[in-house]
Amino acid sequence: MLVVMKQNASEDEVKTVINYIENNGFRAHVSEGEINTVIGAVGGKSMDKRNLEILDGVQEVIKISSSYKLVSRTFRSEDSVVTVKGKEVIGGKSLCLIAGPCTVESYEQMRDTAAALKQIGVPIILRGGAFKPRTSPYSFQGLGEEGLQILRRVADEFDMLVASEIMEISQLSLFLKYADILQVGARNMQNFNLVRELGTIDKPVILKRGLSATIEEWLMSAEYIMSGGNRNVILCERGIRTYETATRNTLDLSAIPVVKKLSHLPIIVDPSHATGIRNKVAPMARASVAAGADGVMIEVHHCPDKAVCDGPQSLYPDQFASLVSDLGVIAPVVGKEVVKI
Amino acid sequence: MLVVMKQNASEDEVKTVINYIENNGFRAHVSEGEINTVIGAVGGKSMDKRNLEILDGVQEVIKISSSYKLVSRTFRSEDSVVTVKGKEVIGGKSLCLIAGPCTVESYEQMRDTAAALKQIGVPIILRGGAFKPRTSPYSFQGLGEEGLQILRRVADEFDMLVASEIMEISQLSLFLKYADILQVGARNMQNFNLVRELGTIDKPVILKRGLSATIEEWLMSAEYIMSGGNRNVILCERGIRTYETATRNTLDLSAIPVVKKLSHLPIIVDPSHATGIRNKVAPMARASVAAGADGVMIEVHHCPDKAVCDGPQSLYPDQFASLVSDLGVIAPVVGKEVVKI
Amino acid sequence: MLVVMKQNASEDEVKTVINYIENNGFRAHVSEGEINTVIGAVGGKSMDKRNLEILDGVQEVIKISSSYKLVSRTFRSEDSVVTVKGKEVIGGKSLCLIAGPCTVESYEQMRDTAAALKQIGVPIILRGGAFKPRTSPYSFQGLGEEGLQILRRVADEFDMLVASEIMEISQLSLFLKYADILQVGARNMQNFNLVRELGTIDKPVILKRGLSATIEEWLMSAEYIMSGGNRNVILCERGIRTYETATRNTLDLSAIPVVKKLSHLPIIVDPSHATGIRNKVAPMARASVAAGADGVMIEVHHCPDKAVCDGPQSLYPDQFASLVSDLGVIAPVVGKEVVKI
Amino acid sequence: MLVVMKQNASEDEVKTVINYIENNGFRAHVSEGEINTVIGAVGGKSMDKRNLEILDGVQEVIKISSSYKLVSRTFRSEDSVVTVKGKEVIGGKSLCLIAGPCTVESYEQMRDTAAALKQIGVPIILRGGAFKPRTSPYSFQGLGEEGLQILRRVADEFDMLVASEIMEISQLSLFLKYADILQVGARNMQNFNLVRELGTIDKPVILKRGLSATIEEWLMSAEYIMSGGNRNVILCERGIRTYETATRNTLDLSAIPVVKKLSHLPIIVDPSHATGIRNKVAPMARASVAAGADGVMIEVHHCPDKAVCDGPQSLYPDQFASLVSDLGVIAPVVGKEVVKI
Repeated sequence: MLVVMKQNASEDEVKTVINYIENNGFRAHVSEGEINTVIGAVGGKSMDKRNLEILDGVQEVIKISSSYKLVSRTFRSEDSVVTVKGKEVIGGKSLCLIAGPCTVESYEQMRDTAAALKQIGVPIILRGGAFKPRTSPYSFQGLGEEGLQILRRVADEFDMLVASEIMEISQLSLFLKYADILQVGARNMQNFNLVRELGTIDKPVILKRGLSATIEEWLMSAEYIMSGGNRNVILCERGIRTYETATRNTLDLSAIPVVKKLSHLPIIVDPSHATGIRNKVAPMARASVAAGADGVMIEVHHCPDKAVCDGPQSLYPDQFASLVSDLGVIAPVVGKEVVKI
Repeated sequence: MLVVMKQNASEDEVKTVINYIENNGFRAHVSEGEINTVIGAVGGKSMDKRNLEILDGVQEVIKISSSYKLVSRTFRSEDSVVTVKGKEVIGGKSLCLIAGPCTVESYEQMRDTAAALKQIGVPIILRGGAFKPRTSPYSFQGLGEEGLQILRRVADEFDMLVASEIMEISQLSLFLKYADILQVGARNMQNFNLVRELGTIDKPVILKRGLSATIEEWLMSAEYIMSGGNRNVILCERGIRTYETATRNTLDLSAIPVVKKLSHLPIIVDPSHATGIRNKVAPMARASVAAGADGVMIEVHHCPDKAVCDGPQSLYPDQFASLVSDLGVIAPVVGKEVVKI
Repeated sequence: MLVVMKQNASEDEVKTVINYIENNGFRAHVSEGEINTVIGAVGGKSMDKRNLEILDGVQEVIKISSSYKLVSRTFRSEDSVVTVKGKEVIGGKSLCLIAGPCTVESYEQMRDTAAALKQIGVPIILRGGAFKPRTSPYSFQGLGEEGLQILRRVADEFDMLVASEIMEISQLSLFLKYADILQVGARNMQNFNLVRELGTIDKPVILKRGLSATIEEWLMSAEYIMSGGNRNVILCERGIRTYETATRNTLDLSAIPVVKKLSHLPIIVDPSHATGIRNKVAPMARASVAAGADGVMIEVHHCPDKAVCDGPQSLYPDQFASLVSDLGVIAPVVGKEVVKI
Repeated sequence: MLVVMKQNASEDEVKTVINYIENNGFRAHVSEGEINTVIGAVGGKSMDKRNLEILDGVQEVIKISSSYKLVSRTFRSEDSVVTVKGKEVIGGKSLCLIAGPCTVESYEQMRDTAAALKQIGVPIILRGGAFKPRTSPYSFQGLGEEGLQILRRVADEFDMLVASEIMEISQLSLFLKYADILQVGARNMQNFNLVRELGTIDKPVILKRGLSATIEEWLMSAEYIMSGGNRNVILCERGIRTYETATRNTLDLSAIPVVKKLSHLPIIVDPSHATGIRNKVAPMARASVAAGADGVMIEVHHCPDKAVCDGPQSLYPDQFASLVSDLGVIAPVVGKEVVKI
């Protein structure tokens, strides 16, 4: 931490700052500039910078080191690659594609959707919600365990992996049984009890960015998971809340190059929830890959008109096939590829 | 729901819309204007408006009724007053004052703070955190059950009520044992499993507004609690996230008259977390009461310089006493009063 | 400026930074900490900090001094008081009240409104728009010079001062002729040609905060005016744009204590444009004064139902009278008063 | 406009609404639903919806038609293509590339930059600022007319078109003399006097989106230009202000498909100002084209390290060449191409 003193700070004020720093277990290094005296605080554990800011004579206090450690590029300089059952699935050269309906509705729905996805001929991770966070208590809340069972059964029939959203610690044993990849939704990004618990499991976790989370807070939540020992974290940008209402949220694609610089973790994008409407999904998926994302997560339903939930933002299987084909052209520009099965 | 057709919508397009509405269990009322045909959908349960928006010929779809019911002024026109142990505490004529440190650190700290608060001579609800949501996994996470025990013991010694934040369903039995009022933090406002569970208890719940929650979403979360049977909900404005960084968050005091119009629930304000710095707390507390809030929740510490957490935003007891005196002058302007014990 | 080097920065990287600093006319002061080397740059004129940020080995670059000078508390520690014709009008002990319709519509309208305001028996500055910034090219754009003439004539009849909004440099001579106080609207806060020109006149300028302006940018625009020699600047908070749509804008009342700390300039609040609807105006006006504002600017129309513009947010004269009475109770809490004529 | 009455609205309240509508020159069409009576207002010129909202018994008032006309897809269904001197430059099949330094510094600087751009072998519009909007009054404000002269001279030498930013009406004659395309900056998007004036000229105008402008407000400003007779408007997304500070602004690429649906106008993207830092420019430029933009505007300087202004966000010529090559791969995916000279 650096404490910049005011131009006219007195010697006593400087001493008070030094005492405060030393009483908190830090060492103080004073550097007298022509205008401002700057006092560095090093070696200690942690201090609330505002405690220094309110001391007399202090102009500004600057935190130097970021609070996250394990997720940072400084800790690990190469890109992390997430593997499932020994195979690289996210973060490597192959563009990761996650697709499926918003909600698991029935075995038939999942089977028909998975069959349509399988036909495209590229590796796809199957997604579908079994537990649904809904703004209204009167909306459909998901099939629960039955949904996870269906998801697993269909994925096994089509040789796919399963990704699904966990909402609460009490659901963890179910997810360990049925899912390959666990997803934390935007509203739970700062559910610290949940993310801490996910640090203790050995399955990959997709951590969606909170609706109003800064990139730093997002990385701090990933740090919760990594600090527990689970190194398989995938970040997922899904739109932030801004004043603009023309789309449901504002997809922050600049987050991709920002995250790539700060962290070694892979980052994917969910354009379906961000835009909320079908005809914006493909443009934003293409843009995500062009900006350097490691993959995309797209809502696809074999029959969106009959979807119980989020039909209007779900692609038809042939729209998704056409998008995959476009992504195959764009991916090589950023050193990725869409492999064939 | 109202579906406004485009000026040049064809008869077939109108028919498709009517069919969709009727197939979803609604009745369709067509009204042909000179320019736009408008189709009302009534009597059904629920429809995703985007399903109509993407039909050909549709210009706009408008949701008429709000999704919340029990929290609305339509459901109950008089102001709700929350009582604890048979006494009115929030929402009545008496301005509600909640005060105490950010975190419960020790018995001595709570006792000294409570003693200082008691001296002011007005009824105060004692607050203090036992479980702390922290952005970083490396920060102090609270004393847990011991913190709740201390809080209860001190409150009983000084004849005060206890308010504290619950972070997870598994903590519920502890809170039922030790606390009089449970608080849901901003990050948990849309932890739907938690708020649904709080609908089943018979203690009041303070529901803080999420950092990027609209007022409508906030009321929907209150609806989760009320729909479970618990009518004792208190809303708490604590600042929203905006582009301005001069304060930690932007306190949205306009929310007070807005909520008062839409809902019968009492609303209080937490200026300590919103501003994050001591010298902004009193001005914003005064402003809250002048805008019509039913109370304020303020961080007070008997010795802020030694506080483990959030010291820089905590008031000294004498600053709080002076604020209470100011609030006593302002309150009558909005039909409230600061009563003496 | 302080350049914080990365932990593992090489000597060569440190030298490159020093060279860059010195080549730009600054002196470099190196301070080697245990972890980070910190290099201070002093004595020069100006540098884009990003030029340093992109050098190898640099972790962070911190600007120490704020860019505004004349508007800061450091430049002038006492509160500035704006006078017109030798009388203190804004910033002194007397709470400043500015009232009148959104738009000047006719002599009769202004006379009836002014007469109603006069009856309240307190000093009021008369406002009214002659040139109107309208989002749509098809909306009423104001009476122009005729509007200013009416405003002047009516103000003289009732012994009031005139405040009105200037939109463009070419209108300046008209405003110098008819107005006592010039107002710069939110959309023009960063119309730098306009604000620079207003630095050359000797009439007070009310500078509204831009819809998405930070407090620092707002002060920088005030600096444009002051650097031209005009010291009579009044800041006016009028709401910022956030994600919340329940009110037209979000009134940022925290800006009041923030500005009071950073600057000596007086600050008033316009709750009418911020909230956009009548029943929110009085609560937010009361809150503004309770938070320490030097005055309020309120839209009042003798007959809001017939107003050409912004009728729904205009108060009836008796509502305004009642508000003034409430403000008279609140003002003493913050060391102000509502004086009688 | 549609007025939705409350469930329990009385007949008298309905009548009051009808009277209000008819007194304002509209016709009222009443449609009685089972729950809500809905009253349509048609045929009139304009009404402030809030005037209806504050009447008793009114639940909600909905504006049906958008306020812009000439810029909408309804007015013109095919994409507009902007031509200069008889050649299609923006909006056609060829991807539009605008490049050059932030500020015109000297003849040599512009010549060296233009020479480097010319070598790439694709058509490029040369940009450079002669008048600079600067947050601080103490920053460099541009070369003025001399800057425009240099820009023109260099463009002519290399057979390029010239684009530059106009800040004020008084500069118009200079721009008509030297520039091919005029640019309106983000801060001036709602400088209505300026945009109205630009409606009377016969040169294309690039209209940047305001920092906190909604897409609707942006289209309304374009409407100002088109309503004056100038049909050659190009929209330019350049980032909006959000809470995220990791990039200077948040580039809203979703605006591309949104604008394409609402309007026939071409849209380009400026990733340099949005991100503010060099290594984010190319990813976001690629993303813009992948999302369907008609072109990009990029800051390029022959020697960014010596740039007077915005060097850190300027690309080196070879970085730009490499980006152009990438865009050549992506463009065909969205039906565009990067043509060779």
